[in-house]
Amino acid sequence: MLDDTALAALRAIFGDRLSVAPALLAQHAQSESLVSAGRPDAVVFPHATDEVAALARWSSTHRVPLIGWGAGTSLEGHALAVSGGVVVNFRDMAAVLEIRPEDRLVRVQPGITREALNRELRATGLMFPVDPGANATLGGMAATRASGTTAVRYGTMRDNVRGLEVVLADGQVIRTGTGAPKSSAGYDLTALFVGSEGTLGLITELTLRLHGQPEAVMTAVAAFPSVAASVDCVIATMQMGLTPARIEFLDAETVAACNAYSHLSLPPAPQLLVEFHGHPAGLAEDVSRFRDLAAAHGATGLDWADKAEDRTRLWAARHAAYRAILASRPGAKAVVTDVCVPISALATAVEETRADIATSGIPGPILGHVGDGNFHAILLVDPASDTEVATAKALAGRMARRALRLGGTITGEHGVGFGKRPCMQAEHGAAWAVMGALKRALDPLGLMNPGKLVPD
Amino acid sequence: MLDDTALAALRAIFGDRLSVAPALLAQHAQSESLVSAGRPDAVVFPHATDEVAALARWSSTHRVPLIGWGAGTSLEGHALAVSGGVVVNFRDMAAVLEIRPEDRLVRVQPGITREALNRELRATGLMFPVDPGANATLGGMAATRASGTTAVRYGTMRDNVRGLEVVLADGQVIRTGTGAPKSSAGYDLTALFVGSEGTLGLITELTLRLHGQPEAVMTAVAAFPSVAASVDCVIATMQMGLTPARIEFLDAETVAACNAYSHLSLPPAPQLLVEFHGHPAGLAEDVSRFRDLAAAHGATGLDWADKAEDRTRLWAARHAAYRAILASRPGAKAVVTDVCVPISALATAVEETRADIATSGIPGPILGHVGDGNFHAILLVDPASDTEVATAKALAGRMARRALRLGGTITGEHGVGFGKRPCMQAEHGAAWAVMGALKRALDPLGLMNPGKLVPD
Repeated sequence: MLDDTALAALRAIFGDRLSVAPALLAQHAQSESLVSAGRPDAVVFPHATDEVAALARWSSTHRVPLIGWGAGTSLEGHALAVSGGVVVNFRDMAAVLEIRPEDRLVRVQPGITREALNRELRATGLMFPVDPGANATLGGMAATRASGTTAVRYGTMRDNVRGLEVVLADGQVIRTGTGAPKSSAGYDLTALFVGSEGTLGLITELTLRLHGQPEAVMTAVAAFPSVAASVDCVIATMQMGLTPARIEFLDAETVAACNAYSHLSLPPAPQLLVEFHGHPAGLAEDVSRFRDLAAAHGATGLDWADKAEDRTRLWAARHAAYRAILASRPGAKAVVTDVCVPISALATAVEETRADIATSGIPGPILGHVGDGNFHAILLVDPASDTEVATAKALAGRMARRALRLGGTITGEHGVGFGKRPCMQAEHGAAWAVMGALKRALDPLGLMNPGKLVPD
Repeated sequence: MLDDTALAALRAIFGDRLSVAPALLAQHAQSESLVSAGRPDAVVFPHATDEVAALARWSSTHRVPLIGWGAGTSLEGHALAVSGGVVVNFRDMAAVLEIRPEDRLVRVQPGITREALNRELRATGLMFPVDPGANATLGGMAATRASGTTAVRYGTMRDNVRGLEVVLADGQVIRTGTGAPKSSAGYDLTALFVGSEGTLGLITELTLRLHGQPEAVMTAVAAFPSVAASVDCVIATMQMGLTPARIEFLDAETVAACNAYSHLSLPPAPQLLVEFHGHPAGLAEDVSRFRDLAAAHGATGLDWADKAEDRTRLWAARHAAYRAILASRPGAKAVVTDVCVPISALATAVEETRADIATSGIPGPILGHVGDGNFHAILLVDPASDTEVATAKALAGRMARRALRLGGTITGEHGVGFGKRPCMQAEHGAAWAVMGALKRALDPLGLMNPGKLVPD
């Protein structure tokens, strides 16, 4: 609870863009997945960096936590006010500040969504390719080091954030990065803040790398006789040095759910959905090589969609897969979890996970950005059944430990939040305490998104 | 000076791999460029991580600075013992520990050089592409966030280090990164240590990304009627989305020096040296597009070397450019400096720098990795002339400030060391103090490479 003095001081900064309305607070206490905890004491809607800086000074003075909020689509409870405090909703800081086509850069505010950004870029011939599926905000995507379907070619947020403006815990405003394509001038603060999940500061501006819209695009879908065959085809594709723009795995359950939800008629078998971008001649060569690899792994029905509307339909179905899977068990909620392993361990990781889910008694379709070794299980539970929820959480925990045993990571793209925090020690060992030391150096009062990512 | 107790304790760790021989100390007080200061009290040659950890504990106990040393090729005095202390020469930790072709990863010790690594990789069909020119060690390249000719396609050390083992100031050993291609599991410690120049810890192992050796390679050299025409051709190339593997600018003075030193007969005009890597069909398309762009910018003598020996001769000449330029003024020493600017500002930056050098009265050929906006001036001075040295340093300072004015960085790839430290505040503002706070969090006694990169 905020005391009257604190509330009055906060109102002096934000006026009627401060809300303590119970309905709004409840809305900001929800998460996209089953992860839930806490409830903010207030929500503010800043218009400018100096308001965020004033907010940080207020937070230090009154010892109140600050939690950044983008689109609310994170999956590990990143934006939940686990110890109360003020949620900073960046809805009104959503402008494109500058497009620099000659340098392939764009400067944006954190609240803009990736779809809105790409709409604004359309006429320039450039695009921002990182696509986590959800229409997340760029601030949230940077904070969680998001990636998604296109990371296999274009990289993750780590690779596509050139610089940041950040408000630190004490209200100082710093800028990281420059307009130059590279730099050796000191610690890589941009990389430190990307993926820091609001625990080191609040991102108030981003400079992003843009990429040329591809001249030519080919998308294909292919069914495989087994999970192993499809995953082995991915491994062979990556080891040959082909660079698909996307290469997605959908297991038979996911395909069935997508068929029902998106009115497709794909064979109910493991499928790869693959896309290549390029200049026409190079693209034809990539497509031909992938065709040979797919055939060698027993693919059937390899169907190249070169019309934009067919491609759009396929990718719309892929993006709707999460909702399709949810709809496949009415009333269910999802424990959504992701891991990422070395490509050489991908088949083992997927097969062991499938077997583990199969014996658990709850449905758990698997799909993922397998060119990166990254896959998801969407574990469907009856939220009223403590047993099912516990079973799903135990499965997710075993997935994380399996990924570590195979040389991978507990999360390829969803991040830590507080959902994955119990796994951090197992992944990082002594390095987790180093993260804690860095956190204390920049946020000695522990007010920036407490309860997330770092040790207590 | 080390006292007898400290020296005895150090000898207990390293035995006869500890040296205080004056000749050896003097050798480790030298730098590749004119930057010089300080002299170590001792040099040690560790064989294993646990020795480095014991060394760090010794350093904390006896309050003695530690300075990592690779090949001694850094250009801003990174490895100089400005406050005395112990230089840690990684010469004997130079093994390839594991090659994982299926994951395109290699695990190495820090003392291996990039040429030795690529020799060991040759039979695998893979390569480590980052090439700063000098035959630097991988530990040094990571510590300085090196890049070089191929970064325009393959990225810098930021992009090619997947994970590290680091000995911290207190002797703790941590591991960063995993074998998975990406991760969202917490702060990006790998990125924090890459470019930290030994000020946060000593790198004792690296896991590096490998790339497929290109199926087809085409190299060309072309003369341009002016600096502006050649730089505009680079800008057009990058803006068209072509991805040369290298695209190097050499001004007329550099070309003349290379002709003399490497027995070439290139026209004494600004030249671009460009290379494309790829599959045959895609490569032909890239080459054809570059040919058109070069012609449109007035290039003459565009000469494609598709034979390996011709390519080797050209790149050998490029790599020898530094020595060629030094040889062009007998007895001279070089103030070597680099800056990096947004591509859109590259022509302005190069032209203004040339004009500035021209009025200074000292020779200063310009060359660089212009696809990244990165270029170097090699300012040739009589080391006995205080006036010339001061003139060169003033020129370098103006280059750095010009790069900042144009939205770039004071160093694209050489790093900060102590040579560029006076420019850090101008580039980073309040963020420089943030770097200092991070440094204090991990090295509270200030013993890891003191006097470099961060504020005092």
